[in-house]
Amino acid sequence: MGTPATGHARILDEAAGDLLFRAARTADSFTGEPVTEEQVQAVYDLVKWGPTAFNAQPLRLLQVRSAQARERLVAHMAEGNKAKTATAPLALIVTADADFHEHLPVMFPNKPGIRESMEADPARERIARHNATIQLGYLIVGIRAAGLAAGPMAGFDAEGLKKEFLGDTGQEVIAVVNVGRPGPDSFRPRNPRLEYDQAVRTV
Amino acid sequence: MGTPATGHARILDEAAGDLLFRAARTADSFTGEPVTEEQVQAVYDLVKWGPTAFNAQPLRLLQVRSAQARERLVAHMAEGNKAKTATAPLALIVTADADFHEHLPVMFPNKPGIRESMEADPARERIARHNATIQLGYLIVGIRAAGLAAGPMAGFDAEGLKKEFLGDTGQEVIAVVNVGRPGPDSFRPRNPRLEYDQAVRTV
Repeated sequence: MGTPATGHARILDEAAGDLLFRAARTADSFTGEPVTEEQVQAVYDLVKWGPTAFNAQPLRLLQVRSAQARERLVAHMAEGNKAKTATAPLALIVTADADFHEHLPVMFPNKPGIRESMEADPARERIARHNATIQLGYLIVGIRAAGLAAGPMAGFDAEGLKKEFLGDTGQEVIAVVNVGRPGPDSFRPRNPRLEYDQAVRTV
Repeated sequence: MGTPATGHARILDEAAGDLLFRAARTADSFTGEPVTEEQVQAVYDLVKWGPTAFNAQPLRLLQVRSAQARERLVAHMAEGNKAKTATAPLALIVTADADFHEHLPVMFPNKPGIRESMEADPARERIARHNATIQLGYLIVGIRAAGLAAGPMAGFDAEGLKKEFLGDTGQEVIAVVNVGRPGPDSFRPRNPRLEYDQAVRTV
């Protein structure tokens, strides 16, 4: 694989499309098999290449691994998310870092002074959240690419989690994602998707 | 490919990881080769399977195909995005539909009454934007899966675009994405990414 060549572009094979999208499912329970730091690094080292506006890369991940940290996390999850978050092999707190601009002199040398202009930009938090959320999409795909199941959740006390784990940083929680091998009764029946004509129009 | 089996999970092969992430690049110019409606449908029919909160699926796409519509789009793009948007084989206006709840009785039958509770929920627009933005991540991956290059852009007049193309709907523009085969001088030198230890911590 090098630069895609006009007219000869490779297309993703069907088994890979199944793995990432068609056969992949959100997991509600997990086996006890651990998720290693090496697996998380492999996921990150794949999805870090996904594009963001001016290469801002505001996504940050906090791996919740210790028993004590897991308890602190579960306390801030919505009732229906507590049991699965307590038993998943790994839980990731996914955040958007509004201080992403500190890295721009290295990450986006194309535009000298962008660190300073972004520091003063009232839209900076919104830009962080928007781009980190695009990266959350890449992350879910990347977890599946590593042969793992993702259980992304939106039901939690975001302010409580921020106080508990992020303190006085520019980070805001945008999701909590359980990661592991799906357990035997992990999947609910699959719900339908909008048809092409319901979601896509042409002008 | 069926349900992932514990301990025997498939992992995405290296060529596919290159296609979607490592070798894929944001395109700044394109060849004249058209992007067909069938290709867009293949992209949609892959990425529609990506998960959203209570299967909300707020992502909507407006394919800008006619010369007249393209002119109207370009008028609302930021100066630096006009030329590439004018010449890309296809431009997609990507929106978040705050009226996604109308589909929930079919899309999420698990929770009767969710259409009504969501209709009254002041967070509905935020939920639409958050989940559509996750889906934008899937979309960029899906465009690459179809052997095409994506050129996602954030520089445009969102209010102007909404008035021009979306009128009195619940849709808000979250991105404009050019799609096509990359032209010969399409790619700028690649910028670095944050190292694992800069983006990922453990507790």
